[in-house]
Amino acid sequence: MTDSHPRILHDLTATGDRRFSPFCWRTKLALAQKGLDYATRPLRFVDIDALNPGGPRLTLPTLDDGARRVTDSWAIACYLEDAYPDRPSLFPSGLEVARFVQGWTNTQLNAALLRVILLDVHDALDAETQAYFRQNREARFGMTLEAFVADRPGALQRFRQTLQPIRDVLQDQPFLAGAAPAYADHIPASAFLWADAIGQGDLLDPGDPITPWLDRVTAGLAGE
Amino acid sequence: MTDSHPRILHDLTATGDRRFSPFCWRTKLALAQKGLDYATRPLRFVDIDALNPGGPRLTLPTLDDGARRVTDSWAIACYLEDAYPDRPSLFPSGLEVARFVQGWTNTQLNAALLRVILLDVHDALDAETQAYFRQNREARFGMTLEAFVADRPGALQRFRQTLQPIRDVLQDQPFLAGAAPAYADHIPASAFLWADAIGQGDLLDPGDPITPWLDRVTAGLAGE
Repeated sequence: MTDSHPRILHDLTATGDRRFSPFCWRTKLALAQKGLDYATRPLRFVDIDALNPGGPRLTLPTLDDGARRVTDSWAIACYLEDAYPDRPSLFPSGLEVARFVQGWTNTQLNAALLRVILLDVHDALDAETQAYFRQNREARFGMTLEAFVADRPGALQRFRQTLQPIRDVLQDQPFLAGAAPAYADHIPASAFLWADAIGQGDLLDPGDPITPWLDRVTAGLAGE
Repeated sequence: MTDSHPRILHDLTATGDRRFSPFCWRTKLALAQKGLDYATRPLRFVDIDALNPGGPRLTLPTLDDGARRVTDSWAIACYLEDAYPDRPSLFPSGLEVARFVQGWTNTQLNAALLRVILLDVHDALDAETQAYFRQNREARFGMTLEAFVADRPGALQRFRQTLQPIRDVLQDQPFLAGAAPAYADHIPASAFLWADAIGQGDLLDPGDPITPWLDRVTAGLAGE
């Protein structure tokens, strides 16, 4: 796959070309569900300015679908749904459940996971990007990266507790989106792909019903 | 309204006949949305055995709809949706969003609120019920009620943070259920009605977008 591919996903990368961004994973799961082929262009945090030279700083994921550029994972999901209505829907039970799951994942699930893996994210970056990341995140959180993850066992326990709404729903239906996986599942599943990419994938207790759900949601990526 | 009313809601009560149970509030909001008239029969925690003498202990809410008895707020919502399909739907955008919001409310929102109001719940009960409640809850939480709520300012801050997924969704749509309020809204709104009933309703910062949402969701109760 090359840059001449008609569909390019600009994707955050780390050392060893590990693709870790949970927001980029949402888009990759959405593209897989839609059955849409694409190439990726890896960018480091410190290279994102190169995405839109001289213009506003964009965020990742950014998708170039032919001449059309869309930035932001939610905007991309809505764009794909509108642009490819004949492909399997990302929102088979409406936008509502995906919106709430997104709000919960962004503010609670990912926040709980960060307390486990923030330093591992840092360690996966090259030296130049590490310097940017440390300064940016230590200013945001008001403490060192090391202090932020100081209580890893407690943070892991709280992360597992935070997942409880998913377990509750799986008692009644196979996927958050309903009978089949869709974008409401892609969003929290991407938190696990984020941790997996930097070697921190062993987050769940054996027998946790989250595990088979996650396997089913990410099965669509297998062919890539 | 009397016990000869064809529709009776068995409803948890405290001193001053304050109806505080968040699960019973879900059912009252659901009945209001369906436009269904009902009488309530108040029961204290220690009187619940009287609901089903000699049989299994039921929980509140329990609804007697003529000869049909349904226990559990979710089961009641599903029953009302099936039994009164011509009334406004409790699930206009499907069961999925309501299920996820319920899982989140039961395990995270209500848990965060309990850290603020557990002792206030106790204080609203009569002496006999207080003894039951203290023993039951102190065994469940492994600490005294007083210890459980010792950090009220911190707990209030965490409760407000826990509400963030609702604020996120309200940026894009007026209600969790979509364009109009429904059961996905009734569930978390009932957490506030719980606190309100025991005089702890002042939970939100001024200007919090949760407040006008809550006012709109509970407007259907105004006539009662």
